[in-house]
Amino acid sequence: MEIKVLQRILKANDGIARENRRYLTEKGIFSLNLMSSPGAGKTSILERTIERLRERLRLGVIEGDIATSRDAERIGRLGVPVLQINTDMIGGACHLDANMIQNALREWEPGEVEALDMLIVENVGNLVCPAEFDIGTDMSAMVLSVAEGDDKPKKYPLMFTISEVLLLNKMDLIEHTDFDMERFRKDVADVNPRIRIFPLSAKTGEGLEAWCDWLVKRQEG
Amino acid sequence: MEIKVLQRILKANDGIARENRRYLTEKGIFSLNLMSSPGAGKTSILERTIERLRERLRLGVIEGDIATSRDAERIGRLGVPVLQINTDMIGGACHLDANMIQNALREWEPGEVEALDMLIVENVGNLVCPAEFDIGTDMSAMVLSVAEGDDKPKKYPLMFTISEVLLLNKMDLIEHTDFDMERFRKDVADVNPRIRIFPLSAKTGEGLEAWCDWLVKRQEG
Repeated sequence: MEIKVLQRILKANDGIARENRRYLTEKGIFSLNLMSSPGAGKTSILERTIERLRERLRLGVIEGDIATSRDAERIGRLGVPVLQINTDMIGGACHLDANMIQNALREWEPGEVEALDMLIVENVGNLVCPAEFDIGTDMSAMVLSVAEGDDKPKKYPLMFTISEVLLLNKMDLIEHTDFDMERFRKDVADVNPRIRIFPLSAKTGEGLEAWCDWLVKRQEG
Repeated sequence: MEIKVLQRILKANDGIARENRRYLTEKGIFSLNLMSSPGAGKTSILERTIERLRERLRLGVIEGDIATSRDAERIGRLGVPVLQINTDMIGGACHLDANMIQNALREWEPGEVEALDMLIVENVGNLVCPAEFDIGTDMSAMVLSVAEGDDKPKKYPLMFTISEVLLLNKMDLIEHTDFDMERFRKDVADVNPRIRIFPLSAKTGEGLEAWCDWLVKRQEG
């Protein structure tokens, strides 16, 4: 029964996701769903990405968290418009869904949304459930920290399958771990041969330029 | 609607969890639900714990993963009985539930279960959903890696609230991170003042003795 109910929920979600995608496309806004486990470094990468791109693009952010507005405050300090979704207000959901994004977009002033070139949605920290819910963005990117280990692609395949980009973060820690890059790349390729991997470190800045350049080109189409 | 369905699922789950708890208690088996984000180090801690305790206690393990039997193979190499649950066979669930544990317990030979002193269940890697599902164990423990950051207790409060023990892993990496132990302990205490924190490293062995001694005492009652 649980599976049947889930299928109905996912079907309804996909309809709203299509509406979101149409709405954003009509307004000329490129959109990105950023996902990862808790603590992989989504917010830190987002901060570094905004710092590099805010002169070139008008960026807006939707922050998804179960509780607290800490991440939205961090992003707000960079001077870009940000909306916080706290899922503990709506059942404690472990992921964002298309309906939450639609409601968030309605909270922005119409002029404010239309001024954007790019919307980045930072999903709830969870390597599993967010991958099941299309929220209506143009693309999905995932973050994995090398501290999480090289065995994740085979153990949590769905997020690797649906993501266009994999930001491999905390490269500054790799020498202190037993992360095997060759094995990792092989497992990733088995799950999704088309995914683009950017090894980087939000802490040292390593690899961020390549990712930001790629993102700007992807947004330009 | 989603919330109402979830409540019904959780209520049914709680009934089966009570049955599991009664079954294990009757057989004199102490049981532990081990939870964390992906890559926090559940399996490594479990390996080190088994190595230390297998001479003193008869241990059994249930491994929960979305896909692969890699963790069960790692545990099996230590010579303890292990059962693998792969949730991708049953809808790709992002957590274990009481029904999965009940079915797993039935797969063991009755004599095999009765010989156990302690059952450790390693849940699916997810800092959110597993905390919502009582699987019928005597206690819950969670792992957090210092690489995940010190801001997790306030952002993912439920797992911190329901866990009796917090194993703070990868202490060997702490000097390479900006993890603030004082802030972390304060935030943990705000969420759950009774939780017991064991800083440790599955890699170096630091702190494992304190954790294993505590676990044996807890099992003895």
